[in-house]
Amino acid sequence: MIVVMKENATPKQVEHVVNLVKEMKLKEHVIVGTERTVVAVIGNDRFKDRSVLESVDGVDKVVPILAPYKMASKEMKKERSIVPLGNKSGIGGTKIGIIAGPCSVESKQQTLEIAHAVKEAGAVGLRGGAFKPRTSPYAFQGLAEEGLKILAEAREQTGLAIVTEVMSIDQVKLVADYADVLQVGARNMQNFNLLNAVGESNKPVLLKRGMSATLEEFLLAAEYIMAKGNTQVMLCERGIRTYEEYVRNTLALAAIPELHRVSHLPVVIDPSQGTGKSYLVDSMCRAAVAAGADGLIIEVHNDPEHAMTDGAQSITPQQFTDMMKAIKRIALAVDREV
Amino acid sequence: MIVVMKENATPKQVEHVVNLVKEMKLKEHVIVGTERTVVAVIGNDRFKDRSVLESVDGVDKVVPILAPYKMASKEMKKERSIVPLGNKSGIGGTKIGIIAGPCSVESKQQTLEIAHAVKEAGAVGLRGGAFKPRTSPYAFQGLAEEGLKILAEAREQTGLAIVTEVMSIDQVKLVADYADVLQVGARNMQNFNLLNAVGESNKPVLLKRGMSATLEEFLLAAEYIMAKGNTQVMLCERGIRTYEEYVRNTLALAAIPELHRVSHLPVVIDPSQGTGKSYLVDSMCRAAVAAGADGLIIEVHNDPEHAMTDGAQSITPQQFTDMMKAIKRIALAVDREV
Amino acid sequence: MIVVMKENATPKQVEHVVNLVKEMKLKEHVIVGTERTVVAVIGNDRFKDRSVLESVDGVDKVVPILAPYKMASKEMKKERSIVPLGNKSGIGGTKIGIIAGPCSVESKQQTLEIAHAVKEAGAVGLRGGAFKPRTSPYAFQGLAEEGLKILAEAREQTGLAIVTEVMSIDQVKLVADYADVLQVGARNMQNFNLLNAVGESNKPVLLKRGMSATLEEFLLAAEYIMAKGNTQVMLCERGIRTYEEYVRNTLALAAIPELHRVSHLPVVIDPSQGTGKSYLVDSMCRAAVAAGADGLIIEVHNDPEHAMTDGAQSITPQQFTDMMKAIKRIALAVDREV
Amino acid sequence: MIVVMKENATPKQVEHVVNLVKEMKLKEHVIVGTERTVVAVIGNDRFKDRSVLESVDGVDKVVPILAPYKMASKEMKKERSIVPLGNKSGIGGTKIGIIAGPCSVESKQQTLEIAHAVKEAGAVGLRGGAFKPRTSPYAFQGLAEEGLKILAEAREQTGLAIVTEVMSIDQVKLVADYADVLQVGARNMQNFNLLNAVGESNKPVLLKRGMSATLEEFLLAAEYIMAKGNTQVMLCERGIRTYEEYVRNTLALAAIPELHRVSHLPVVIDPSQGTGKSYLVDSMCRAAVAAGADGLIIEVHNDPEHAMTDGAQSITPQQFTDMMKAIKRIALAVDREV
Repeated sequence: MIVVMKENATPKQVEHVVNLVKEMKLKEHVIVGTERTVVAVIGNDRFKDRSVLESVDGVDKVVPILAPYKMASKEMKKERSIVPLGNKSGIGGTKIGIIAGPCSVESKQQTLEIAHAVKEAGAVGLRGGAFKPRTSPYAFQGLAEEGLKILAEAREQTGLAIVTEVMSIDQVKLVADYADVLQVGARNMQNFNLLNAVGESNKPVLLKRGMSATLEEFLLAAEYIMAKGNTQVMLCERGIRTYEEYVRNTLALAAIPELHRVSHLPVVIDPSQGTGKSYLVDSMCRAAVAAGADGLIIEVHNDPEHAMTDGAQSITPQQFTDMMKAIKRIALAVDREV
Repeated sequence: MIVVMKENATPKQVEHVVNLVKEMKLKEHVIVGTERTVVAVIGNDRFKDRSVLESVDGVDKVVPILAPYKMASKEMKKERSIVPLGNKSGIGGTKIGIIAGPCSVESKQQTLEIAHAVKEAGAVGLRGGAFKPRTSPYAFQGLAEEGLKILAEAREQTGLAIVTEVMSIDQVKLVADYADVLQVGARNMQNFNLLNAVGESNKPVLLKRGMSATLEEFLLAAEYIMAKGNTQVMLCERGIRTYEEYVRNTLALAAIPELHRVSHLPVVIDPSQGTGKSYLVDSMCRAAVAAGADGLIIEVHNDPEHAMTDGAQSITPQQFTDMMKAIKRIALAVDREV
Repeated sequence: MIVVMKENATPKQVEHVVNLVKEMKLKEHVIVGTERTVVAVIGNDRFKDRSVLESVDGVDKVVPILAPYKMASKEMKKERSIVPLGNKSGIGGTKIGIIAGPCSVESKQQTLEIAHAVKEAGAVGLRGGAFKPRTSPYAFQGLAEEGLKILAEAREQTGLAIVTEVMSIDQVKLVADYADVLQVGARNMQNFNLLNAVGESNKPVLLKRGMSATLEEFLLAAEYIMAKGNTQVMLCERGIRTYEEYVRNTLALAAIPELHRVSHLPVVIDPSQGTGKSYLVDSMCRAAVAAGADGLIIEVHNDPEHAMTDGAQSITPQQFTDMMKAIKRIALAVDREV
Repeated sequence: MIVVMKENATPKQVEHVVNLVKEMKLKEHVIVGTERTVVAVIGNDRFKDRSVLESVDGVDKVVPILAPYKMASKEMKKERSIVPLGNKSGIGGTKIGIIAGPCSVESKQQTLEIAHAVKEAGAVGLRGGAFKPRTSPYAFQGLAEEGLKILAEAREQTGLAIVTEVMSIDQVKLVADYADVLQVGARNMQNFNLLNAVGESNKPVLLKRGMSATLEEFLLAAEYIMAKGNTQVMLCERGIRTYEEYVRNTLALAAIPELHRVSHLPVVIDPSQGTGKSYLVDSMCRAAVAAGADGLIIEVHNDPEHAMTDGAQSITPQQFTDMMKAIKRIALAVDREV
């Protein structure tokens, strides 16, 4: 890190900073500029709390140099990671993995009908919530274990890998018994106890970016999981909260090349949550594939106007099938396949 | 709600919407305008998923009329609620309650020293984390139960009510055994399982606004707690995430009069998290009191440059004492007291 | 619009709202719900100031129904508009138009070298600023008319259409004398006098979205230009300001399908401003083409590390050439061409 | 500035950066850390384009050290500036200056009535727009010179200083002939030609912060004016654009102490634009005074429900009078006066 002193900092204040740096078991290097003095701190300060130095008299600001995450970083592992998805070829290689299904598991019939349809169109994973994080306590909260059983039956019938959300530490074992991939939702991206718990399971994790998380915070959330021994993490961009009004969230597709630049983990895009509007999903699927996404996760419902959750952003099986045809062509144009 | 049809919607599409409204056990009222037809939906649709109608052919948008929360609303209870704070006069009345203390409980000596100092200066509550939500898995995570015991001893010695964070459902019982108030942090504002769990305890809850939560989402989080039977909820504004760079968060003080307008729950301001800079805390405490805050929660550390967490935003006991003098005068000027 | 009354609004207050609506020469329709009364306002209130009713006693909120723009809207004109770009096939049809060039015109040699290179790679327009809006008064402000002459010579030599910024009403005539397309920058999107002035010229306008403009504000800015008689407007998304830190702006690609949904005007994407990082430009060009953009405007510099402006986001002619090859393939995959 | 090299940067790349630094007539200081090399750049790089170095091979990022503004900075002038407001004691001293009046000048009668009322209650300045920046081209655009004449008559009758907006370079002379203070609106904060033009006038300027401007950009806009010789600049915080929905803008009151920390210019708060809701204005006036604002600018209308602009955020003369009484008490409590 670099400690920038105030314009009028005294030599004594600089010396005090130097002493604090030494206390941290780091080395200092003082540079006296024409207007400011800065103290360059040498050594691995990745895991130190740098902000503490900001409270010191004479200090103007502290600038970090090293990223605070390690296991998730490209510096740690140069080649891209591939995370398994059921028995399939995994997410992160040449093949782009498509995960599709209803927002919520509502009934066996609904889930099986959608599962067969998305399988037919080329999906490799089935999404569907049995435990649902709902903004209102009065809204449908999911079928719980009954929903998980329905998902398992859908896997049985279609071979699709099951991706489903776990909301709380006491659900991890149960969900892991049924699912192929544990999804951690955006609202839980900094539920650190949950991150630790899924880190201790041996299931791949689809980690959604918090709705106003920086990429650094996102990668540190992945780091929580990885630090517990589970390195099978997929990073899922699902739109961020901005002032925009025509979408529920602003899908930040530049996160794809940026995450690929700084991390080895695969990147999955959720254009359903990422826009909140079914009529924007197709374009954003196309864009995500062109921009280099390793996977997509898409809400598909056979009867959106009666969906118990997220009807406004679900596309129909027919729309999904058409979209798949479109992205297969785009995938080829960027030397990948769907 | 109001369902706005597209300009070119057909009579058949309008009829279909009417049928869906009837299916919801609500009444419709169709208004044919000069350019658009709208379907006004009559009846209590507070707990319906309105967005589902957005997926229907011919529908342009759906506009909610009723707020989706009930127990937290002013419509439910006209007079302001007062939430107890230890043996004190509570938060929400004429007296403004000041809660102060370290970000983390680091040691008995540190905690007791700070507790005595803030008590002396007029605080009625002691804050301090025993379980710490940290962005990095490598950062100090709190002293856990040992920290809770130190807090209990500080209460013993000073009479201050203890406000401390609970991060996970499995900690609720333990924390409730020691604390007077359970704090739910910003990152957990939509950890719905945790909200349910604290809703089932009988301790007052200090609920922090999520870093990008709307006030509606904030009040729905309070509603989760209240719907489980615990109505002793304090709403804590702690800054929101914006593009601003000179602060860690943008403190949205207009939330004070707005929350008072729509809800009966007391409002507490956190100027420490709300700015992230110790040198901005004093001004924001003054502003919060003038704007009508019912309480403040402030980070105070006896040695900020060695604080294990949040040193940059902690003020010293001396600064706290000076600030208290200043806000006492402002409180009187707005016909309240500290 | 819909006027939503407060829960406890009196019949007298409702009557007062009805009278105000009649004063506006509009018709009212009062609907008494189970909890709230709403007054639906019938007639063309597109150009009325609706917020005024919010100040009336007993009114809770006012919900607009009609979009406030008209000429820019899809309702006005169903088919997509094509805006001419020099002698070329225009922007808005099957062919995607690529505009490339330096951020600033720095010298004749620099500009010509870049112009030839981007022409060679398939660009149809040359961008380059002669008047530069700079955040700092001490930064390079552009070559003014000398720069325009250099651009004109580049057109002479290459046939590329010239796209260049006009910053102020007193520059409109001068810039229009040299340029094929007048660019209005993001910082001037609500410089209404400038919008009127370019609306009175007969040159096509590339209008950049303000850095925190809603799409409604963006389309109203276009409406200013169109209302003065100039309907040749291209809408340029160039990234919005959010809390994200790894980019200078967050490129909101969902704006492409949304603008196509509500407007007939062509949509151009600026991935250079839209990310601020040269290494993200290629991916965002690919994504924009896949998502349906009608054009791209890209900063290219032959010597980015000595560029007088925006070196960090400029790609080299070689990178541009490679990118063009990539997007040609993607364009074919979405049934378009570059 | 500090140039941070990539982890795997070669010595040759470092050497190249050193050469570029020398080309800039600055001195370099290379520090080889355990994981990264950084090049500290010594000398006044305040007015250099630092981002250019980001495009250089092997460079990871560039961190500025010096603020890019000079004349507006506290480093340039330690004591607070006082900007004259008509014949009054000015803005920036112990006395807090209150500017009030209608959003738009609509008629002589309206303006005079409001002017007398606000004067009576203690205002020292009269606000009112003769040229109005309107989001829609179809909205009321102001009375132009006729409006300025009405304002001048109001000054004649009341002694209030006139604060009114100038939207375009061709209006500067005209507005300066009538007004005491030239207001530059938020939408024009980066209309650099206008900043230069008001910088060349000899009238005090009330500069509004752009709706998504950083404080650095805000101070650089002030620097534009000051660099032209006009140092009488007041900085006006008027709310920023965020995701919040209950307000038109989020009023960032921490900007008051921060601007006072880094600049000597006085700070004025606009709670009307800053919230967009008349019922939030009173609380935000109180908070602003407590937080140290040097002035307030407030929209007051004698008939808000018929106001031609901004009725929803205007308070009545009676509400203004009550508010003034409240803030007089708060001002005394912070050792100032209104």
